[in-house]
Amino acid sequence: MVEEEIIKSLALKTESKIVLLVADGIGDLPSYQGQTALEAASIPNLNKLAAQAVCGLTDPVSRGITPGSGPAHLSLFGYDPFKYQIGRGVLEALGLGIELTPNDLASRANFATLNEEGIITDRRAGRVSTETNAKLCKIMQDKIKEVEGVKVLITPGKEHRFVVIFRGEGLAEGLSDADPQAAGKPLKFTEPLQPVAQKSAKIINEFIRRATEVLRDYYPANTVLLRGFAKQPKLPTMKELFKLTPAAIATYPMYKGLAKLVGMEILKTGESIEEEFNTLRDNYEKYDFFYIHIKKTDSYGEDGNFAEKVKAIEEVDKLIPRVIDLKPDVLVVTGDHSTPALLKGHSWHPNPFMLLSKYIRVDEVKKFNEKECIKGGLGRFAAVEALPLMLACALKLQKYGA
Amino acid sequence: MVEEEIIKSLALKTESKIVLLVADGIGDLPSYQGQTALEAASIPNLNKLAAQAVCGLTDPVSRGITPGSGPAHLSLFGYDPFKYQIGRGVLEALGLGIELTPNDLASRANFATLNEEGIITDRRAGRVSTETNAKLCKIMQDKIKEVEGVKVLITPGKEHRFVVIFRGEGLAEGLSDADPQAAGKPLKFTEPLQPVAQKSAKIINEFIRRATEVLRDYYPANTVLLRGFAKQPKLPTMKELFKLTPAAIATYPMYKGLAKLVGMEILKTGESIEEEFNTLRDNYEKYDFFYIHIKKTDSYGEDGNFAEKVKAIEEVDKLIPRVIDLKPDVLVVTGDHSTPALLKGHSWHPNPFMLLSKYIRVDEVKKFNEKECIKGGLGRFAAVEALPLMLACALKLQKYGA
Repeated sequence: MVEEEIIKSLALKTESKIVLLVADGIGDLPSYQGQTALEAASIPNLNKLAAQAVCGLTDPVSRGITPGSGPAHLSLFGYDPFKYQIGRGVLEALGLGIELTPNDLASRANFATLNEEGIITDRRAGRVSTETNAKLCKIMQDKIKEVEGVKVLITPGKEHRFVVIFRGEGLAEGLSDADPQAAGKPLKFTEPLQPVAQKSAKIINEFIRRATEVLRDYYPANTVLLRGFAKQPKLPTMKELFKLTPAAIATYPMYKGLAKLVGMEILKTGESIEEEFNTLRDNYEKYDFFYIHIKKTDSYGEDGNFAEKVKAIEEVDKLIPRVIDLKPDVLVVTGDHSTPALLKGHSWHPNPFMLLSKYIRVDEVKKFNEKECIKGGLGRFAAVEALPLMLACALKLQKYGA
Repeated sequence: MVEEEIIKSLALKTESKIVLLVADGIGDLPSYQGQTALEAASIPNLNKLAAQAVCGLTDPVSRGITPGSGPAHLSLFGYDPFKYQIGRGVLEALGLGIELTPNDLASRANFATLNEEGIITDRRAGRVSTETNAKLCKIMQDKIKEVEGVKVLITPGKEHRFVVIFRGEGLAEGLSDADPQAAGKPLKFTEPLQPVAQKSAKIINEFIRRATEVLRDYYPANTVLLRGFAKQPKLPTMKELFKLTPAAIATYPMYKGLAKLVGMEILKTGESIEEEFNTLRDNYEKYDFFYIHIKKTDSYGEDGNFAEKVKAIEEVDKLIPRVIDLKPDVLVVTGDHSTPALLKGHSWHPNPFMLLSKYIRVDEVKKFNEKECIKGGLGRFAAVEALPLMLACALKLQKYGA
C-alpha cells in the first residue's frame, strides 16, 4: 500500500500532463459466446495503444471486493479506499452541485408510493418525470424550510431522485436508512446507530412525517425514502497531496461530485463522449491532470446489455485518437471497476489497465482486454498505486531517500 | 508487507548459505534500439541461470517510487523501507566512509556564495572543484575543532559537497534545513522542530556563523549550507532478526555503510568484480549470508552510458560461474533499483530478480531480463519480501502456526 504522506513529500509541480481515461465498468466477464465486451468489440485504436503501452490489471479495493463508484474512484485518484470513506448522500449532493458545509448532513432521497395501509408499493413512485420531481421538491421546500431549528434544503435530481440536506449544529452520522429496501413493506424511519446521532434521527423522522403530509395529494409520489445519511469527509485535495492542478470531465453528477471532493475543477461539457473529448482539447493548456469519465460502458453493463456495451467501447475506440493527438506525457485507459453484462452490476473482477509514457517498459501485450492484460508488465496491482505510477511516469515524483 | 516480528520468530540458524548478488541499477528502460541493457548484453551464463531459476520482478519500495540507495538496500536486506528511514546526513556520511557513533549528528553540507547584502547568490558556490573543496574543508577544520564542547568533524566530498559531523552528548534530530533552497534568498539558519533539538540548533548555527567568518576571503565559496541533520538509526541486526551471520562485499563506502548498519561484517576486497568474487570464495566458510554489491552497472546508468552499462553486465556474466562454483544453497541475482541510461538516474521501474535453490518451482523464463522476468514464477513483489523467501529456500524458516 502506498504511503500517502511519503508520496506527498515527493510530489513535484511540473509542466507534464496526465490524462486518466476511465471507461466506467469496462471490465467484463465472458458474457456472450465466451467473450468479454472488450474481446467482442472491434477496437483497433485501443489495441494499437496497448501494443505501445505497459499493461496490467488493477484491483479497485482488494481481491473479491465489489466496489461502489466512490471507493473505486477514490482508489484511482490515489486515495486509500479503506481510509477515506464517503457516504452516498454526500456524493449525490456534490453531484447536484450543492455546496456542503461542515454542519450539513446529506441524504439521498426518492419519491415513493404509499398505500392506505401504510405500505410502500413502489420505491420509485413509478419513476416520476424529472419535471414532476422538480415541481414536488419545490412544493416540499416551500412548506418545510426547517425542522426544530435545523435548516432543510431540498434539491431535485433526475426522475424520482432528490437530495435533502439538513443544515445545523450537532448533526451526526451513524443512522440507518429510512428505506424499507423492498416494496410491500411499511414506511420506514431512520434509527440512530450511535447515541450521537439521536438528534439527527429525530429531525429526519419529523421531516419524513411532514413531507408525507405535504405530498398526500400527489399520488404516486406521496411519500419519501431517505438513505445514505452522511457528512462531508475531510479529504486532502489532489493539489495538497500530489501538487496537481486537476480537472474533471464527466457527464454524471456522481462522478463530478467525487472529483470535486478531491479538489478537481469540474469542466463544463456535453453529454457525448465526443463532447467530453472536445472539452479536454479546449482546456488542455490549463491543467496538468485530467480525469475523463465515460459512463456508457457501465450503464449498459448494469442493464445486462452486452451488445450496447460493445458498441459503447467501440465508440471510445473510434474517438480515442483525439486524446492521443494531444500527446499527453502520461495516458492511462482503464475502468474503475468491472460491470459484467452477465451480472448486471458492479463486480470484483480486476480492471484492464494500460499506461503510455516515454518512460515505460513496453510489454508484449498487443490487445486491450482482460485476458491479455494478465500478461502485462505491470502485473496485477491495487488501483490506489496507479496514481503514484502516473506521477512517476510524468516525472512528477522525486527520489525517496538518498 | 512482510511482518518482521513473525519472520524473526520463525528464523532458524542452519548451515545453509545464501548469496545475494546485487548488480546496482541493473534494471533499465528500452534505452537503445528498443532494448534494455540486459537485452542488449550477451549474457549466456546469466541466461543459463535464469533457465534453472525462478524469476520475477521486485518493487524496491512501492510502485512509482524511485528509491535512493538507502531504502532500496534496506528492502533487499529485509527491512521495511517505510519503517526504517535513514537521514540524508547519515547516508552522506556513510558514503564518505565516516564511522559514526551514537553521539553523532550528521549533516550534508554545501559551499555556497553569499553577497554583501547577505543574500545567497549561488547554492553551490559555482561548483568549486573537488580539490578546492578539500583545501577549504581543511582550513575550516583547522579553525573550528569544536563548538561549545561539541566536536566538529568536516569531511570533504565531491565538488561543493562535504559532510559535517557534530559529535557530543545531547544532540538530537528534528531540525529544519539551514538552506534557503533557492538562490536570491538570505542565508538561513536551522530551527529546532522539537524542543529536544534546541541545543543542536544553537551549536549548528554557531558553526555556520564561524564557518562563514573563516571563509570570508574565499569567494565564491564564502559560506556553507547544512541540511539533512540526522543521527544514525538504531536498526535491529540481521543476526537479531534472521539469525544470520552476514558479510558484505562492496567497493563503495555507501554500501559498506548500509551493510554495517544492519550488522554485516564488511569484508576487505579490491576494486574489481573479479576481486569481489575472490573475496567471496576466500571467506565462504565463515558466513552464511553474503551480500555482494556491484557498482558499475549503476554508475554507467547514471552517466547515461548505455554501451558501458552493457559491458559491465557482460563482465558480471563472464565471472558469475565463480559464484555458482561455490554451490550456495540459495543464490539471488537482482538489482536494488533500476538506473535506466535513458533517465541518467535511479528510477521506479521494478528489478529483474532470479532465485536458485533446490526448493523452487523452476519457471519457463529462459533469459534474464526485464521482459522475461514478467513471466516468472515469482510474479511481481515487494523487494522486502525477498529476504524471507531466500531464508525459506535455504530452509532457514520454521512453519508459522501449527
